[in-house]
Amino acid sequence: MPLKPDLPLPEAEKRRVGYAIVGIGELSAEELIPAARTSEHAYVAALVTGDPEKGRAFARAYDLTEEDVYTYDRFEELKDREDVEAVYIVLPNSLHREYVERAAKMGKQILCEKPLSVNAQDAQAMVDACRQAGVLLMTAYRCQYTPQHWAARDAVQGGKLGPVKLLDSIHGQVQDDPEAWRLKAGLAGGGPLVDVGIYCLNTIRFVLGTEPEWVFATLHQPKDDPRFREVEESMSCMLGFPGSVVANFLTSYDIQKTATLRVLGEGGTVLMDPAFTYQGLELTISDKQGDFQPKLPDEDQFGLEMDHFAQCIRQGKTPWTPGEEGVQDHRIMDALYRSARSGEVVRLDPVQGQDVFRGEKPQVPGQSQG
Amino acid sequence: MPLKPDLPLPEAEKRRVGYAIVGIGELSAEELIPAARTSEHAYVAALVTGDPEKGRAFARAYDLTEEDVYTYDRFEELKDREDVEAVYIVLPNSLHREYVERAAKMGKQILCEKPLSVNAQDAQAMVDACRQAGVLLMTAYRCQYTPQHWAARDAVQGGKLGPVKLLDSIHGQVQDDPEAWRLKAGLAGGGPLVDVGIYCLNTIRFVLGTEPEWVFATLHQPKDDPRFREVEESMSCMLGFPGSVVANFLTSYDIQKTATLRVLGEGGTVLMDPAFTYQGLELTISDKQGDFQPKLPDEDQFGLEMDHFAQCIRQGKTPWTPGEEGVQDHRIMDALYRSARSGEVVRLDPVQGQDVFRGEKPQVPGQSQG
Amino acid sequence: MPLKPDLPLPEAEKRRVGYAIVGIGELSAEELIPAARTSEHAYVAALVTGDPEKGRAFARAYDLTEEDVYTYDRFEELKDREDVEAVYIVLPNSLHREYVERAAKMGKQILCEKPLSVNAQDAQAMVDACRQAGVLLMTAYRCQYTPQHWAARDAVQGGKLGPVKLLDSIHGQVQDDPEAWRLKAGLAGGGPLVDVGIYCLNTIRFVLGTEPEWVFATLHQPKDDPRFREVEESMSCMLGFPGSVVANFLTSYDIQKTATLRVLGEGGTVLMDPAFTYQGLELTISDKQGDFQPKLPDEDQFGLEMDHFAQCIRQGKTPWTPGEEGVQDHRIMDALYRSARSGEVVRLDPVQGQDVFRGEKPQVPGQSQG
Amino acid sequence: MPLKPDLPLPEAEKRRVGYAIVGIGELSAEELIPAARTSEHAYVAALVTGDPEKGRAFARAYDLTEEDVYTYDRFEELKDREDVEAVYIVLPNSLHREYVERAAKMGKQILCEKPLSVNAQDAQAMVDACRQAGVLLMTAYRCQYTPQHWAARDAVQGGKLGPVKLLDSIHGQVQDDPEAWRLKAGLAGGGPLVDVGIYCLNTIRFVLGTEPEWVFATLHQPKDDPRFREVEESMSCMLGFPGSVVANFLTSYDIQKTATLRVLGEGGTVLMDPAFTYQGLELTISDKQGDFQPKLPDEDQFGLEMDHFAQCIRQGKTPWTPGEEGVQDHRIMDALYRSARSGEVVRLDPVQGQDVFRGEKPQVPGQSQG
Repeated sequence: MPLKPDLPLPEAEKRRVGYAIVGIGELSAEELIPAARTSEHAYVAALVTGDPEKGRAFARAYDLTEEDVYTYDRFEELKDREDVEAVYIVLPNSLHREYVERAAKMGKQILCEKPLSVNAQDAQAMVDACRQAGVLLMTAYRCQYTPQHWAARDAVQGGKLGPVKLLDSIHGQVQDDPEAWRLKAGLAGGGPLVDVGIYCLNTIRFVLGTEPEWVFATLHQPKDDPRFREVEESMSCMLGFPGSVVANFLTSYDIQKTATLRVLGEGGTVLMDPAFTYQGLELTISDKQGDFQPKLPDEDQFGLEMDHFAQCIRQGKTPWTPGEEGVQDHRIMDALYRSARSGEVVRLDPVQGQDVFRGEKPQVPGQSQG
Repeated sequence: MPLKPDLPLPEAEKRRVGYAIVGIGELSAEELIPAARTSEHAYVAALVTGDPEKGRAFARAYDLTEEDVYTYDRFEELKDREDVEAVYIVLPNSLHREYVERAAKMGKQILCEKPLSVNAQDAQAMVDACRQAGVLLMTAYRCQYTPQHWAARDAVQGGKLGPVKLLDSIHGQVQDDPEAWRLKAGLAGGGPLVDVGIYCLNTIRFVLGTEPEWVFATLHQPKDDPRFREVEESMSCMLGFPGSVVANFLTSYDIQKTATLRVLGEGGTVLMDPAFTYQGLELTISDKQGDFQPKLPDEDQFGLEMDHFAQCIRQGKTPWTPGEEGVQDHRIMDALYRSARSGEVVRLDPVQGQDVFRGEKPQVPGQSQG
Repeated sequence: MPLKPDLPLPEAEKRRVGYAIVGIGELSAEELIPAARTSEHAYVAALVTGDPEKGRAFARAYDLTEEDVYTYDRFEELKDREDVEAVYIVLPNSLHREYVERAAKMGKQILCEKPLSVNAQDAQAMVDACRQAGVLLMTAYRCQYTPQHWAARDAVQGGKLGPVKLLDSIHGQVQDDPEAWRLKAGLAGGGPLVDVGIYCLNTIRFVLGTEPEWVFATLHQPKDDPRFREVEESMSCMLGFPGSVVANFLTSYDIQKTATLRVLGEGGTVLMDPAFTYQGLELTISDKQGDFQPKLPDEDQFGLEMDHFAQCIRQGKTPWTPGEEGVQDHRIMDALYRSARSGEVVRLDPVQGQDVFRGEKPQVPGQSQG
Repeated sequence: MPLKPDLPLPEAEKRRVGYAIVGIGELSAEELIPAARTSEHAYVAALVTGDPEKGRAFARAYDLTEEDVYTYDRFEELKDREDVEAVYIVLPNSLHREYVERAAKMGKQILCEKPLSVNAQDAQAMVDACRQAGVLLMTAYRCQYTPQHWAARDAVQGGKLGPVKLLDSIHGQVQDDPEAWRLKAGLAGGGPLVDVGIYCLNTIRFVLGTEPEWVFATLHQPKDDPRFREVEESMSCMLGFPGSVVANFLTSYDIQKTATLRVLGEGGTVLMDPAFTYQGLELTISDKQGDFQPKLPDEDQFGLEMDHFAQCIRQGKTPWTPGEEGVQDHRIMDALYRSARSGEVVRLDPVQGQDVFRGEKPQVPGQSQG
């Protein structure tokens, strides 16, 4: 994750898009802010935090001044910061809507962490607010920007596997801390499904390019475990796609870290394991000839998504994963919870076509297509 | 698969159990008969086939005489063959009941290929017939006899993974030949579920030792594919076990060969991949310390099951996978088909306890327990 | 390893070549004799052993009569057995020469286990004896007949790796039993080099197709270990090939089972691990695009070599690995021992051309070439 | 590689050791400077470069001022920078001696990239200069500070493998650019041996803890390849250690990236593959029970070594890999070149004892020992 030493920096910076990072938790600190430093098209111009001291420490560390640090009540002061063209919302899920709406009012371009919101209705309201304000909204689905996921999608959609029949995915990890906001329904809007299971769901939709017609799910929430008073511990989900393609996925906050995806076709198989980690994604494409692991760059995934959004801003294009993509996942997750609670299959409104909720294709390192 | 050269053969043979192999298809020819040659406790004493010429070729090749070859209409002549203590039924599924009942009447001990029958009712009738006749009936679940599957079960039940939360399994392959008996409902009783999916189901039950409380399934049977006029192409199945443990499995006759099992616990994971092949089973047990692949012998699985049954015969004990074990899988598969056809969850009669349908623990090479 | 049930056996047997297996040790019992049963072109017609009781047990087990069992002093009686066209010599190395010469005198075709003899001089005498007698002599280098080794060779010689620079190989295992004939210099002619290291040497020569120009080696023989009173425990060998290609290999009788081969080129790499086992060979061919594991059949290697020799006999062709191939390995091993004892580089007579010591290319399952 | 957000930075910085990075090439830009940001005990306080514009770009990017950038002719001005306690020399090898001696005169603590110099004599002179000046000198052998390499060493020295017999290592890559300083003998002092082969050599010595008694090597330098006019393309090296342990290693500037280490013992094996990469080191420890991949943190290796040296400075202790460790590798590499040129074994002065050239054991993340 080096700064390119031969990059003529001052000129580049004029063209780069300045982001305000809104929320300095672990993800911002360990991934987003370092990633921005590797970006060709984006940089961190301001920080918004409830902890000004932490903000100042980061400012010192990352070439910002104390003036670049804002508390939440001073969020609207960013309006006058012309160098802050975009905000990256990294707050607890239930705050996404408020901050997206406030940012839209200021005319800022908005990159928002997944899940976009806490349900489809709120998510749709965010999309509407951004459309009205004439600003772009992108859901930060990092996996839709990696060379590995695009190679998997290309294998599936390019016919390398023959007709696809079944998909299987797992994403889970142990959530130890009973006090984590991710375990509070009021902040998170759900449990492992909306936090890690969403990767299974979103990636299955991404590699197929189509939308599910029905879902079935079951949910486990052990009453005696203080961590799971408000959200589910585990879910098992089944989704029916056009052409009778069926996808299963499992998600949990109480299993050892697992992140896999398998796409099973008549003529071949795609396996990603790990499939959703920040680094070290491994892809195997198998057919009758054998197993192939393509050599693909292990890019900073947050850098890739910040770059894509910066380019969309410069070129006035809809991002590949706009707000609508986030709304659709909420529609499906809402249906999964409904199924789990009723014990019945839930049908979704049919969606025709490929990639209907997606925008401009991203540039993916190591891929030939645009 | 050597004959042990230092084994005092003539004496040994007196003690070994002679089997009649009933049905000489690919499985008999390529696996069972060669396996019997590696056995310490079993040998092939007779062949029953509809194709006498093929039977004689096998006889010549395997140290038998022409007198050891029987056609189906001469099946009852085996009664007088004292050296034939057991029969191994390797016929199309819908013929299992008839031949088990005929063999029971002759007082022969019976090893029957999986699935035991074509539904729970017929399977139960077979169990009843054998009980009345005072003969043993064993379902040929080879995977319940391998060192790898026992090591997986021991890891799960010994607490190595902590509390188990979720299981995930896949078993499928391409069935090319539209004329195969496995694609005829009247002969097979079902499609990939009863043929290969049964391994997922049976192994999930084996590693947990408990029985499912409810199932949900979906089924795909493409009308325009001549192979799937009578049976399903693919199924996706979800099963709920005591303690809210959920298991998913996928099975298909139209995906590239895949055979996996994953058991996900709070403290660790068991992965078998491949999980159900005749050879080369690979097991990884993971916990917080790392990943461990135990070195276990790659035994002939058919030899192991024939040996176990021979020992049960000698010692008058119920085999580890008796007829009842096969009946239980039929009950669950019947429920899965019912769920797939109704689109609804199907509940099963609750079963208390561990290993309720199983008998005497087998001796497993490389394991310490009996 | 099935007998093909649809093979019209009686006719086939007329055309198949009958072998007498000379020496019934572990290799014969566990590999060769079972392998012969899988063969299309070969079968076991007689056994020669110093232990008639063991011989009779095998005869019973493998469809032979007591008349098919010979003691060593009755070896020459095979002369009149017209159905015994070939002998397969599986005796301790120092006896190879005597039995090859006796078999040649009887006009039998001869397949001889590796190493061909105990030194280049004796090996050459065997080649000469067979030439004079007008019989074929083949060295049983099973690895030169597998799909995996041919795919590795094709990748190397087809330019897939670009110019090859370096090779690295290891073959070793623990030899526990101090009484094993393989630890007696008078019987084995050497230690791990002539028994397992020979696979590294022979396979390196096979994938390159060229011959070494010089060698250097070092040898360890611990005085205080009763197993290594007569032969070396370990050797490290370096070989220089035309074009300054250098190959290293390690061999030992006191390391955990290891069997690897790596070919390193400017544009890619071939890795076999395990490289020399009877089953489960794994091949990865890597280049800038990624890593590829071709799906290749896991054939019985002894069956392949017995089939090849049978076809050479029928067609009057020089086998791919004739006696000359075995002599050349002895020349190089003699030089390696000389180097290890002198501490100096030993030069070999230059050999021009490709595959100069080899004959008719074998038919390899899964390969397109003849 | 995050900055720890909860670290009270200003206080920490008082205690952290300020480094001047001397030379801003690819390694500094992509690894060292980012690594310093992750360090608990070290930070970058100044940059020394021949390209002031590049220096200023780095300064801007990394929280430094223009005053923190020095040209080589102003190197001695660092003397007055009290906050610059240490220099990290990242220049072409032939300049190491000059800059180490100049830094020592200024009383700075010195971390110097590997190889320490261009031969043992110059390297020894550097050690002497630092001793006279009373400053610490550490050779930047990053692999001696990783959890993976320490786990390998612990397995070897803790007896997990039983007596070690043989070692095998490969490190090579394609050096494309004929103009690279690494291909100029006057700057590099050698070819792949001193640049990448040194990892094999150094790690073999590290895991054993002992020193070679003799070496043998062969070298390839193709006259017709413009890249290799001055330095070798490839080398094959053999080393004899006490107890007749033999290690082979291969190194090249013209093979696809390969980085492996294998330690072969009577009771087990250690495999590292990749063994020397900046990230993603993989370790397998095998014994009779099976194969084990311990879960170890993937730390920034440059951060680890900068931290270790900072702690040695604070505590006045000799670093684990002091200058003497670098001198010893030069002694051995000098002998390897001598052997390759003479074609003869070269003996080294015997060295008794374990870790004789090493200092204070580093703190290794995930290891229990100090």
